[in-house]
Amino acid sequence: MGELQAIRERLRRFVAERNWERYHSPKNLAMALGVEAGELMALFRWMTTEESRRALRDPALREKLADEIADVAICLLELCDAAELDLGQTLTSKIEKNAAHYPANVARGRPERPA
Amino acid sequence: MGELQAIRERLRRFVAERNWERYHSPKNLAMALGVEAGELMALFRWMTTEESRRALRDPALREKLADEIADVAICLLELCDAAELDLGQTLTSKIEKNAAHYPANVARGRPERPA
Amino acid sequence: MGELQAIRERLRRFVAERNWERYHSPKNLAMALGVEAGELMALFRWMTTEESRRALRDPALREKLADEIADVAICLLELCDAAELDLGQTLTSKIEKNAAHYPANVARGRPERPA
Amino acid sequence: MGELQAIRERLRRFVAERNWERYHSPKNLAMALGVEAGELMALFRWMTTEESRRALRDPALREKLADEIADVAICLLELCDAAELDLGQTLTSKIEKNAAHYPANVARGRPERPA
Repeated sequence: MGELQAIRERLRRFVAERNWERYHSPKNLAMALGVEAGELMALFRWMTTEESRRALRDPALREKLADEIADVAICLLELCDAAELDLGQTLTSKIEKNAAHYPANVARGRPERPA
Repeated sequence: MGELQAIRERLRRFVAERNWERYHSPKNLAMALGVEAGELMALFRWMTTEESRRALRDPALREKLADEIADVAICLLELCDAAELDLGQTLTSKIEKNAAHYPANVARGRPERPA
Repeated sequence: MGELQAIRERLRRFVAERNWERYHSPKNLAMALGVEAGELMALFRWMTTEESRRALRDPALREKLADEIADVAICLLELCDAAELDLGQTLTSKIEKNAAHYPANVARGRPERPA
Repeated sequence: MGELQAIRERLRRFVAERNWERYHSPKNLAMALGVEAGELMALFRWMTTEESRRALRDPALREKLADEIADVAICLLELCDAAELDLGQTLTSKIEKNAAHYPANVARGRPERPA
């Protein structure tokens, strides 16, 4: 069993043991993911981009960051579970699609990353 | 090499080939993740929770959903890369922390999931 | 002086008294708004759409809701201030643009609000 | 009638003419606001904070920014309408609460804005 699959099984058990399946509609999980994304952004909102790089050396910030990243990932995996999507496969397809959409030779020559 | 590690390597190559590392500060990646979370939420914003469950049977919606889930996951993995965090390990620790914080026997007896 | 203008003046003084202008770049304010939108969404994430309507009768929820709405509005007004945009005028133009873009007679006949 | 009140009346008519009231539960409007916040953030995600200040001189960006600010404000006013909250009054109370919570003399002496 793959790493992601094992974590998903663990999450599914966590949810079942608490009777939380009824909360896990795609709409609710997408909204919960938006909430967690907000908590992740809160860590960096008043920093400059350079300060946010330096902040990675601060153990207290790193711990909060790991917590927020995990919360986003949990929503994402629960959403994959609700939709019966394989995250690894979904990611691989999207990366190939992006590679075709943003050819490397064009991107390198451009001053800016497209918004 | 684990599944997540392989995808991360693929992403790192994608970013390096386009010279996009300079955009990948933690602040920018957290903000990009917030943007992608918004696109994911857009799919479900006007549906009821029940409609969002039924919508999963629609192949066109499933494809958009897979794309948006992948975009969020890409930001998350790029952030892990910038912060030198292992997502699998980070997830495992957080799930154990949550299990201690929301004991199953207490959660089952409560009418509502805590906000 | 209009109502929005008076509130904006009050906010500008609040910010100046704390030396917080240096934090108020458009990027930071947009990100802060995303954070506050997340806190607003947190109130409703596990409710059905119907439950969210009934929740408006709960005084404790109403107070939290008012606080979160105000936080979003403050970010929005600070962003208008940073960009020297008049919110009232900006709103009026956009509502006219939307009225042209979603003609009422077409919208009434459709089963769904466009995503 | 105040400025905000007039805009709210205009919005209410816009919504009624399209039969969109049934979509306007607090949950849906909060989620729609999160989506619009994401679109606003998209404009600045790959810029440094300084670049985001300079970008305000670009007429094309200013127009997009005004559109996104208006979209967020529309969701906010529709939410105030659904909850029967007066935005002006809500804002005034929150600014007074914040002034008590972050005393100016303390804030001025601190190197950082609290997260």
